[in-house]
Amino acid sequence: MSAPAAVNPILWNGEFLRLLDQRLLPAQLQYLDCRSAGDVAHAIHEMAVRGAPAIGIAAAYGLVMALREAPDALDRASQVLADSRPTAVNLRWALERMRGHYLQHRDLAALEREAIAIHDEDLAQNHRIGELGAALLPAGAQVLTHCNTGALATGGHGTALGVIRSAWSAGQLKRVYNTETRPWLQGARLTAFELQQEGIPAALIADGAAAHLMSREKIDWVIVGADRIAANGDTANKIGTYALAVAARYHGVKFMVAAPSGTFDLRCESGAEIPIEERAASELTEFRGQAIAPAGYAAFNPVFDVTPASLIDAIVCERGVIENPTRERVLALLG
Amino acid sequence: MSAPAAVNPILWNGEFLRLLDQRLLPAQLQYLDCRSAGDVAHAIHEMAVRGAPAIGIAAAYGLVMALREAPDALDRASQVLADSRPTAVNLRWALERMRGHYLQHRDLAALEREAIAIHDEDLAQNHRIGELGAALLPAGAQVLTHCNTGALATGGHGTALGVIRSAWSAGQLKRVYNTETRPWLQGARLTAFELQQEGIPAALIADGAAAHLMSREKIDWVIVGADRIAANGDTANKIGTYALAVAARYHGVKFMVAAPSGTFDLRCESGAEIPIEERAASELTEFRGQAIAPAGYAAFNPVFDVTPASLIDAIVCERGVIENPTRERVLALLG
Repeated sequence: MSAPAAVNPILWNGEFLRLLDQRLLPAQLQYLDCRSAGDVAHAIHEMAVRGAPAIGIAAAYGLVMALREAPDALDRASQVLADSRPTAVNLRWALERMRGHYLQHRDLAALEREAIAIHDEDLAQNHRIGELGAALLPAGAQVLTHCNTGALATGGHGTALGVIRSAWSAGQLKRVYNTETRPWLQGARLTAFELQQEGIPAALIADGAAAHLMSREKIDWVIVGADRIAANGDTANKIGTYALAVAARYHGVKFMVAAPSGTFDLRCESGAEIPIEERAASELTEFRGQAIAPAGYAAFNPVFDVTPASLIDAIVCERGVIENPTRERVLALLG
Repeated sequence: MSAPAAVNPILWNGEFLRLLDQRLLPAQLQYLDCRSAGDVAHAIHEMAVRGAPAIGIAAAYGLVMALREAPDALDRASQVLADSRPTAVNLRWALERMRGHYLQHRDLAALEREAIAIHDEDLAQNHRIGELGAALLPAGAQVLTHCNTGALATGGHGTALGVIRSAWSAGQLKRVYNTETRPWLQGARLTAFELQQEGIPAALIADGAAAHLMSREKIDWVIVGADRIAANGDTANKIGTYALAVAARYHGVKFMVAAPSGTFDLRCESGAEIPIEERAASELTEFRGQAIAPAGYAAFNPVFDVTPASLIDAIVCERGVIENPTRERVLALLG
């Protein structure tokens, strides 16, 4: 096991939720208190908390607070939370699990334990994903990762970054390159923060430099997380992931998706059915309130993309590894 | 001919050089006065003036000022100017032309006229490149461009952006997408500024979104400039160009390089011989003095990459179009 992360992004104190405000990292470590489902939905929408597993966990606690406040709030609160971001399915997965539990037991104390279980299970799953993923890497591996998929994005350890942590602990890893991940800079701000805390040799690159890096340095694997995986293995993840997969295939670099089983959405036959969130142009045209493009300039700002299964060498979840994913192989493990 | 650009980045007043400080655009239109070759070299190194043709033009004027100051300054001033940035060959091309002129004529008034000729010829060449490149586009074309290759990067009109301007004037163009071009944001700050001034329908995208864009929208051509083109057609250009070329080939999108003949370096057999400038990590880890990555985090910041000729459908220069470039075809046009 790797050293524990120095910060915990999701703190449940039995009464309300404290979220490490990831918009302010790495400059400030400041928590945001959420005392209602509406507060949690707002924090998810505004990306104070982000990362597919983390927003599922936060939403589960949000539903506990909503039902304590009003026992008839189940449908309304579930909807508000589910609507806070459209692409990651872990959010809906966690809400459905909580909803099913409440409809069966009608027990608020048990419901709180269910939210805590979702949180704890995510951490345990990530350690298992880390072991399974690290086993795929060669000795002295150099890897490239994108966005943030670490302790800050999950219940702890991380998915893609969990594989990296596990490989580092096992002495298998030589170096990590991580993209800055525009426009939100999750890589520069958050992944760099986690890698630095772990003492893992790492370097930041511009998103556009990844293909050049692959042409000049031996990169063994690109390792990314996922926001939703369709039944055929097509994977929605942070914008830029697909470009990395195309470049990886061109250079003979292997491509791994690491995500808990709650990320699979077997109701989506393929990636074409996954909704892709588009966010405000201002995420591209402004930086911390300063204009970086002329006023009024248009932007196309999809914040996820879909990598087809054909470009993925392995999907790693806590239940096992799906190599060269196809519908049959996904259903064999998860169906 | 398109409307003239509203701003002129390089103003020679017969005595000294005024450069529009491109580090401050689009927020501020402020000129920087350069009264010596050292001033010009510093402005090039610090990217107050940038763009392969523009730095060649600025260096030519720098040499005029150096020789007026000290008639024996030829070697020293040429070296200082040539060393200001390593990748773009137009800088060396312009200096060699000026040097040859001076050694032959030893006439400072004629040398000034030679610098003005380099400046004027670049504008004329760009209009020819624009015509030739636009002729390759289909009616109603949607194109993607990278970095800034417009009036701000050249003697006027632009290279890749000159093709876009000419196509727009000819009524051939439907829409331009332009990358923001990290880390220096030439696309967001400069290309967006020029496209907006021209009234060309355009939208900004994150660098990492280009492959996704190609998978969702019909993009006819990616059009980029060049900093150096080897004898076999391999092309060095702004970091991220190569990733666009890989993605373009994967999606069946055509890929055009637009550059004046001074960009060819026939002494380089292939792209492997082109030096790639690496700049400070702080270009990635800071933004306008604010930290965006943890203090002390390492970065790999190559600011150019090499696109192999095999991924290029057409190189357009003022002398003609080289389709599917090879050494033989390059030498047939330029040797």
